[in-house]
Amino acid sequence: MKKYTTINDITNLPELIGDAMVLKKNPYTFQNIGKNKTLIMLFFNSSLRTRLSTQKAAQNLGMKVMVMNISKDGWTLEFEDGTIMNSTAAEHVKEAAQVISQYGDVLAIRTFAGLTDKSEDYNEKIMSAFVKYATIPVVSLESATEHPLQALTDAITITEHQQKNKPKVVLTWAPHPKALPQAVANSFVKVMQHANVDFVITHPKGYELNTQITHGVTIEYNQEKAFADADFIYAKNWSSFTNYGKVLAMDTNWMITRKKMQLTNNAKFMHCLPVRRNVVVEDAVLDSDNSLVIQQANNRTFAAQIILKKIIE
Amino acid sequence: MKKYTTINDITNLPELIGDAMVLKKNPYTFQNIGKNKTLIMLFFNSSLRTRLSTQKAAQNLGMKVMVMNISKDGWTLEFEDGTIMNSTAAEHVKEAAQVISQYGDVLAIRTFAGLTDKSEDYNEKIMSAFVKYATIPVVSLESATEHPLQALTDAITITEHQQKNKPKVVLTWAPHPKALPQAVANSFVKVMQHANVDFVITHPKGYELNTQITHGVTIEYNQEKAFADADFIYAKNWSSFTNYGKVLAMDTNWMITRKKMQLTNNAKFMHCLPVRRNVVVEDAVLDSDNSLVIQQANNRTFAAQIILKKIIE
Amino acid sequence: MKKYTTINDITNLPELIGDAMVLKKNPYTFQNIGKNKTLIMLFFNSSLRTRLSTQKAAQNLGMKVMVMNISKDGWTLEFEDGTIMNSTAAEHVKEAAQVISQYGDVLAIRTFAGLTDKSEDYNEKIMSAFVKYATIPVVSLESATEHPLQALTDAITITEHQQKNKPKVVLTWAPHPKALPQAVANSFVKVMQHANVDFVITHPKGYELNTQITHGVTIEYNQEKAFADADFIYAKNWSSFTNYGKVLAMDTNWMITRKKMQLTNNAKFMHCLPVRRNVVVEDAVLDSDNSLVIQQANNRTFAAQIILKKIIE
Repeated sequence: MKKYTTINDITNLPELIGDAMVLKKNPYTFQNIGKNKTLIMLFFNSSLRTRLSTQKAAQNLGMKVMVMNISKDGWTLEFEDGTIMNSTAAEHVKEAAQVISQYGDVLAIRTFAGLTDKSEDYNEKIMSAFVKYATIPVVSLESATEHPLQALTDAITITEHQQKNKPKVVLTWAPHPKALPQAVANSFVKVMQHANVDFVITHPKGYELNTQITHGVTIEYNQEKAFADADFIYAKNWSSFTNYGKVLAMDTNWMITRKKMQLTNNAKFMHCLPVRRNVVVEDAVLDSDNSLVIQQANNRTFAAQIILKKIIE
Repeated sequence: MKKYTTINDITNLPELIGDAMVLKKNPYTFQNIGKNKTLIMLFFNSSLRTRLSTQKAAQNLGMKVMVMNISKDGWTLEFEDGTIMNSTAAEHVKEAAQVISQYGDVLAIRTFAGLTDKSEDYNEKIMSAFVKYATIPVVSLESATEHPLQALTDAITITEHQQKNKPKVVLTWAPHPKALPQAVANSFVKVMQHANVDFVITHPKGYELNTQITHGVTIEYNQEKAFADADFIYAKNWSSFTNYGKVLAMDTNWMITRKKMQLTNNAKFMHCLPVRRNVVVEDAVLDSDNSLVIQQANNRTFAAQIILKKIIE
Repeated sequence: MKKYTTINDITNLPELIGDAMVLKKNPYTFQNIGKNKTLIMLFFNSSLRTRLSTQKAAQNLGMKVMVMNISKDGWTLEFEDGTIMNSTAAEHVKEAAQVISQYGDVLAIRTFAGLTDKSEDYNEKIMSAFVKYATIPVVSLESATEHPLQALTDAITITEHQQKNKPKVVLTWAPHPKALPQAVANSFVKVMQHANVDFVITHPKGYELNTQITHGVTIEYNQEKAFADADFIYAKNWSSFTNYGKVLAMDTNWMITRKKMQLTNNAKFMHCLPVRRNVVVEDAVLDSDNSLVIQQANNRTFAAQIILKKIIE
């Protein structure tokens, strides 16, 4: 594997999931692989699970890890070509990416959607620049429009918990007070298209995701209908794609409740976390035995570890 | 040992001190104990000694360490149950603590007193929530009302330097421009009650500590009287407990001076640091041969190391 | 080697460069040297290359590394003697340096020129205090008036790329929108005086460096004349030394252009980075095959590694 910045970098999902599950059983087996290898983690944004689980994953493989909050510990980067850099940006990504590449073996980067300029976000301005200029493999710790380690985690978790051959998986929009990126939803949609599942997306009108990503997927605007017979309910908020980056309405009716969960086939509840309790989902659902959110977060380590392993070996 | 968030978690203080002193002689002896074990350190507040010494202690035992400034690198946590989380907090401690527990083997946390709501502080809102929800042992790197690693350090330092069987130890309040927590004082009082010492607390009226903690301890309001024949002077500022979190008066008369030290039995001077020179204590005292503050800070490593060792072995 | 905070700490430059080049070929050879040794890195300022390369260098030698952004993770330090510390500074460097020294084996520090008080900067207030009070070797990660790891890197890079016995090396001032320290220039001038090169400095009038440092070096105020037959062009902005810390004029004519490079003997282009494109230097120069800036940044690791090796062995 030469990079992992999008679900499109996965060639064989079932095999990758299988390998991750084997690794999970014996996470310290491959400690020689990472000897004298360094993972550099650059954060343009806050992170908790991704930061700790990826660091843990690298250390499980015997790698060293160097973590840097690029904007706080360093300075603002320039991403445009040909600019006269007499403003705030102190360094061009062209130098930064090439230089950093010389101090490590894998470069993991966390960026975030600006949510103002759709084409800048969907062209992945920051992540693409690092992929272009870095001379070592780049791993996404979430970018403007994808969160591929999260989606791999989700696919592993569904595989571990599915009780029938082709489970029904529902991705449901849920309310949130702030405008959030579409990254988690996009990668989840992509990964579900590679999985042997009956996949449905449900959201209020106006929250349609990028149709280039959802092409061919069933969209059901009636949340209750969508929940019928579901085996997995995956809740996530995202801001509008068409009215880009906007929160259209705080449609609190879309919160995931125990009552709605009763419409399902005793479905497992999933969320990537952090989750706002009683806004996105009721306490009663999150605290129920059907909630997988903690196990899901645990799988972050093994998703990161299998990707790092494929990259460095 | 299952956790270390209060002096109350110590069952046998003399034995623990003895073990720490043995460890100090050969700090790298137990490097296999920590193999494939990870210490996660979460900071809600600034730290220098605690941050570096605990990290060093873990590495001395062969552990990996992941450090996170939770509010800067992550986001605000919610601690109340049943809240509708539509405000600033992005994640509930219930998820955060459970999730983080999956990425490490010991969770060390630094919090700080709010100094506005006495019951919130003395109920240890943050630390208690982590102890409740974490699924791995929790170690306090100072909390709202205790600093147990500091107090263990202090007990080790007194044991190393005492020249008689039952030395007189005086905890004296000292001036400070800012309102400081009672945490260091509380844990020191607690640990001295387990030690074979003649223990006296001295402070201006109005600075009485929690009587549930000082119960049975001699309080002497006359600082000079208290200093008479003392073998150890432990200086520390704290804000008022009764008039909670308030600085009552900048009573500069209470600064520790060379003149006052002459009232003692050639006493050693102790302070947990950081210390404000010529406010808390005169240069002449801090720079004298009787000052133990640097050796005391050195013992932070071994206090942390013996606790981590007891927890992971 | 007992410390490395100035080029003056180098006793034999050619030997040091030779040792660094040997190390570069087999960077993992000396991993036993650093066993149970810890490098503590304290940052008073932002850093990218220095932070990552020095950390990498220490890990290549088998050392552990603890990184601390002192002002963000800790608090403000006091540097004056005899002060009544009732203002913002919470701890005196006297305690801080002694205490930190006990948690590690080498103390690396990044400070920055204040650019307001020349004598404070040139007395190296912060770095000198750490050197004075630390009880372990101190390494500069750049200070107010020197950047000795950068200059060693530069000397290594010139040695690697020189094609004749005594190449002509030109240090040229270049424009920059912000007031920058003289540190990089000072150390480069010092190191070039130890090297077997024909060394020339060129800058607009008013940008004369400290004459105690440039004593004996050729100064050429005509940039184009200076470039004639040069084998290496080293570009760097600095603020005025005489009119201390001031940007005299944004003399954009001094930008390094392809046209100017044509005056040279097909010179290699060098810069310590970060560099502002099309302000300091044209894209065409930076992106040309003659640019060494990326290789130069790579040598940061080996400059740091040879210094750490000399210190701990």
